[in-house]
Amino acid sequence: MYEKYWQQMGEKTTVVIPGWKFVSYFSDKRKLCWFLEPEFASSIIRLHKLVGNAVTENRHIVVGTGSTQLFQAVLYALCPPNASEPIDVLCAAPFYSSYPLITEFLKSGLYKWGGDAHKFRLNKPYIELVTSPNNPDGLSRQAVVNQDQGILIHDLAYYWPQYTPISYTADYDIMLFTVSKTTGHAGTRLGWALVKDEEIAKKMTEFIMLSTIGVSKESQLRAAKILKVVSDTHEYHAKHDFKECDSFFEHSYDLMAKRWKQLRNAVNQNKMFSLPHFPSAKCKFSGNTFASQPAFAWLKCEGKIDDCESFLREHKVLTRSGKHFGDSTKYVRISVLPRDEEFQQFTDRLSSITLMPPIVISGPEDRAACARPRPTLLNSGDSPRTCSKIGELPGDTCSAREYFPRAMSLQA
Amino acid sequence: MYEKYWQQMGEKTTVVIPGWKFVSYFSDKRKLCWFLEPEFASSIIRLHKLVGNAVTENRHIVVGTGSTQLFQAVLYALCPPNASEPIDVLCAAPFYSSYPLITEFLKSGLYKWGGDAHKFRLNKPYIELVTSPNNPDGLSRQAVVNQDQGILIHDLAYYWPQYTPISYTADYDIMLFTVSKTTGHAGTRLGWALVKDEEIAKKMTEFIMLSTIGVSKESQLRAAKILKVVSDTHEYHAKHDFKECDSFFEHSYDLMAKRWKQLRNAVNQNKMFSLPHFPSAKCKFSGNTFASQPAFAWLKCEGKIDDCESFLREHKVLTRSGKHFGDSTKYVRISVLPRDEEFQQFTDRLSSITLMPPIVISGPEDRAACARPRPTLLNSGDSPRTCSKIGELPGDTCSAREYFPRAMSLQA
Repeated sequence: MYEKYWQQMGEKTTVVIPGWKFVSYFSDKRKLCWFLEPEFASSIIRLHKLVGNAVTENRHIVVGTGSTQLFQAVLYALCPPNASEPIDVLCAAPFYSSYPLITEFLKSGLYKWGGDAHKFRLNKPYIELVTSPNNPDGLSRQAVVNQDQGILIHDLAYYWPQYTPISYTADYDIMLFTVSKTTGHAGTRLGWALVKDEEIAKKMTEFIMLSTIGVSKESQLRAAKILKVVSDTHEYHAKHDFKECDSFFEHSYDLMAKRWKQLRNAVNQNKMFSLPHFPSAKCKFSGNTFASQPAFAWLKCEGKIDDCESFLREHKVLTRSGKHFGDSTKYVRISVLPRDEEFQQFTDRLSSITLMPPIVISGPEDRAACARPRPTLLNSGDSPRTCSKIGELPGDTCSAREYFPRAMSLQA
Repeated sequence: MYEKYWQQMGEKTTVVIPGWKFVSYFSDKRKLCWFLEPEFASSIIRLHKLVGNAVTENRHIVVGTGSTQLFQAVLYALCPPNASEPIDVLCAAPFYSSYPLITEFLKSGLYKWGGDAHKFRLNKPYIELVTSPNNPDGLSRQAVVNQDQGILIHDLAYYWPQYTPISYTADYDIMLFTVSKTTGHAGTRLGWALVKDEEIAKKMTEFIMLSTIGVSKESQLRAAKILKVVSDTHEYHAKHDFKECDSFFEHSYDLMAKRWKQLRNAVNQNKMFSLPHFPSAKCKFSGNTFASQPAFAWLKCEGKIDDCESFLREHKVLTRSGKHFGDSTKYVRISVLPRDEEFQQFTDRLSSITLMPPIVISGPEDRAACARPRPTLLNSGDSPRTCSKIGELPGDTCSAREYFPRAMSLQA
């Protein structure tokens, strides 16, 4: 969805990197996070100040190879190395399906996946992930366990004004953001954390040093430019030759609004599906009052259909079942961010579904096609899905051909 | 050391990245390693064919955020998830000091640090790291345990013709390389693995997906260009307007030869130190017969000095003690790759050392200066050192100010 916007912006976000750059591991040796490029840090602070979605004063910025790496860095930073047992990591269901996989894949003695935060009843230390707006259902969230021994991580990847009203300035202890959800540059693999406590920020930095000895400086340089231009499009129309319609968040907001309208229209064609309801709120950034229009749609099959993913697959729409998100199979998650053609095709198919059997009956060959959707349809910008048999012996793992985006995809 | 060369090359390795690039997680969905940029893969294959240091036929290439991440990916790929106990990871001492730290920091249930491979006597599965040429001592190596249940990882980061004669084409099952040691671009955070077994390559890809959802595409694009130019400087003098003296490996070989001569001269000034002896061999790439001239010098204090690091620190030379590498404190490791001025200053100081007490007696203030060498002297291109108290509670960790390169540094 974002690609077209950046194409329209032409050379304004082009970066040029000479061959002699970045022969050092260090960006600024005097800083706590010594591999954070100063220009990237400046762009982050300026953007947060512009949007008003998070406090940056008295915060340490830690850069990571995507917020995925930062999530692991926080776990490492929060867990005492000599505890008698691993700390439980919790999140209220439905939760981002990668959280349990990332928490478990190395069988760490520091932390373990504790499951749905709503069901946590133990009186012991825990870490609770608060994803707001939430992936997959788009709802605004707060912590649910609220015990003394809990530490919170706020994953605010989607707290940007194209997705949801910026109704407050987040002021939490540990906040995670990522370039991929802010501007669409998923291939850049870059995220940042705003961290109040210096010792936690140091330990996170230590994790990233041990894990990857820092973070790509090329990615940081490029993201610095892109975030700078995002701010420029809002603050310097005249000076930088931007038209008003170029403003990044307005442009993206309009696209998201259009897509959600299109999606709700398709869903309203029949009474077989439903979408979450989002309350309206005033956005401090844009001044508009609107309801959230998240990056994902959390679609529910109403009535007697219990396995929404299978049902949609029979109708040539590939989605990701609610079971991966700790919820019912009556739900599926759908990306609202793919390219225009794909999204149009998806809503066309959704609106044409009836309870009658599909015209093409699913045979073995069709099932194979279903597991391998047309390659051209996979560029949704969404994150790849791990195979379900993760953690098996090498010979038992699923084929790399199955690393498909977990977002909606359409069959040929 | 490499920076000057790349400055001389001017715009030949400059990359230009437009703003609309890399909005997808995917590089090539049909490939096993779906986040590997095809241009980077081509540059790797071409360079290995040119140099003749490693077989690329029938190998899978897996890209990582430095070979540090690839090392962890291999451990994940090799360790069965349901084994009754973690597998021992071994390396013959002296070994790269980060191996034990990286293996232990998450207290994984899959693998654990087993120490010096020379001392391994158990009859059970193990993973042995074979680093050749070795970091820290520069010697060529082969596996030492040689039991049935062992799996080998060959870390060939330094197997390039500026450091050592290319006397054979490496043909191992799992081989690791990194851009930082090949061309000096440490800030790019990029490495690659050549892997024979498809299932291992798949599991490594899975690790990198879970760890960071792929690898910076900006870094890959840039490294692709740099490696391509390295090959061009050797293959296309006329066509690409390169002078013969521009050939990357010849140029770097000459610099390393000069530095080792300078270092051996300094060491020969007194009989207090010694350096390893390297046998001469014919390099298939250059046709020259020469002895290794490694990126690190493994310096030994002869005679009665037992703590070489402390002794040198008193003489205002900061080094890294052999104890961190699983060896005696009579040894220290010194980087041979810093900038010219630093290396000159270091050899000057080394050659002027006598057994007399140093002129400046070390007082408290001096010790503080010693822990904080002049910032300008730290750009050695070497990797940062973790603090020794790794794994303590956040409040107990050492200051980020102590994240200094583990290479030689000089006091003011």
